[in-house]
Amino acid sequence: MSGLLTTYQGPVLPDWVDYNGHLRDAYYLLIFSYATDGLMDQIGLDSAGRAASGHSLFTLECHLNYLHEVKVGALVEVRTQVLGLDAKRLHIHHTLHLAGQPTVLAANEQMLLHVAMDGPRATEFVPPVLEQVQALAAAHQALPRPEHVGRVMALPKPR
Amino acid sequence: MSGLLTTYQGPVLPDWVDYNGHLRDAYYLLIFSYATDGLMDQIGLDSAGRAASGHSLFTLECHLNYLHEVKVGALVEVRTQVLGLDAKRLHIHHTLHLAGQPTVLAANEQMLLHVAMDGPRATEFVPPVLEQVQALAAAHQALPRPEHVGRVMALPKPR
Repeated sequence: MSGLLTTYQGPVLPDWVDYNGHLRDAYYLLIFSYATDGLMDQIGLDSAGRAASGHSLFTLECHLNYLHEVKVGALVEVRTQVLGLDAKRLHIHHTLHLAGQPTVLAANEQMLLHVAMDGPRATEFVPPVLEQVQALAAAHQALPRPEHVGRVMALPKPR
Repeated sequence: MSGLLTTYQGPVLPDWVDYNGHLRDAYYLLIFSYATDGLMDQIGLDSAGRAASGHSLFTLECHLNYLHEVKVGALVEVRTQVLGLDAKRLHIHHTLHLAGQPTVLAANEQMLLHVAMDGPRATEFVPPVLEQVQALAAAHQALPRPEHVGRVMALPKPR
C-alpha cells in the first residue's frame, strides 16, 4: 500500500495513439484529466456535488514528464498524491503506470483552482469538500515528494 | 508581423469540450500537439521527411498555463517560437489565440527529443533538418522571451 489514491483505471484506446500505435502526448494528459475527475469524485465534487454546491475545479497550470511509451490496449492506472492546498487552490501530482506495476510511465503535476461556476470566479473551499481535501493533504504530507515536482524546463548546459 | 510561426489553425471541435461547452484541459494540449506537427512539417519532418530519414521528434516534457476558457466552435490558431536547441533537443513555446487576435488563451512550453525511430534512440539533428532548426532558432532569438517560460509550479506563499 503506497498511500496514494488510485484515481483512474482503463485501457489505452485506439483513438488515443499515433501512427506507431503509441499513446500521443496529449492523451497522456487526457488520462490524467480523467484522474482529476476521479479525485473530484472522492472529495465530494462529483457531478451531484458540483450541482449541489455550484463549485468545481479548473486547471490553472500543469507540467508533464514523458518517461516511457505506452501502447494501444495497455491497461493503465493513475496514482494521485495531494501535495498541498491553500484557501482556493489544490496542488496535486499524478503518475501513470501499467495496472499494478511500479514503473512510472509519465508524471503530471497540476495546480487546480476552486471556482464558483456562476462566475466562474475563484472561491474558497467550503465544507464538506474542505474537510476532504484537508484530510488528504494531511495524510499525503508524510509520503515521499515525487521526483518530477517543481521542475524548470531547460536545455542542458553545454559541456 | 510578430516573427512567430503560425503552426495550427482550426475550430474547437465538439469532441474536445466538457459538459459546459468549454475546451477541456487535455484538448488544449492536443491542439498544441497538432501545432508541433505543423512545426515538423515546416522543418522537413513531415511524414515524407520522417519516412526518408527514419527520424522524428518525441515530447520529453511540457508545461501548460491555462489563461482563458475557449468555447466549442471558436476558430483558434497557434503561434510558435523556437527558444533554443542543442545537438538532439529542440525547446519551443506555443501560444493559443482566437484567429487573428493578440490575447494569449493558453501557453505551452515543450522540450522535444530528436530520435531515430528504429530504436527509438536519441540521435543528433542532421541536414537538411539541422539547417532548418538552426535558422529558426537564430531568427527567433531576437523575439521577446514568452512570459510563461521556465515556470516552477507552487502554491503562493502564505501572507
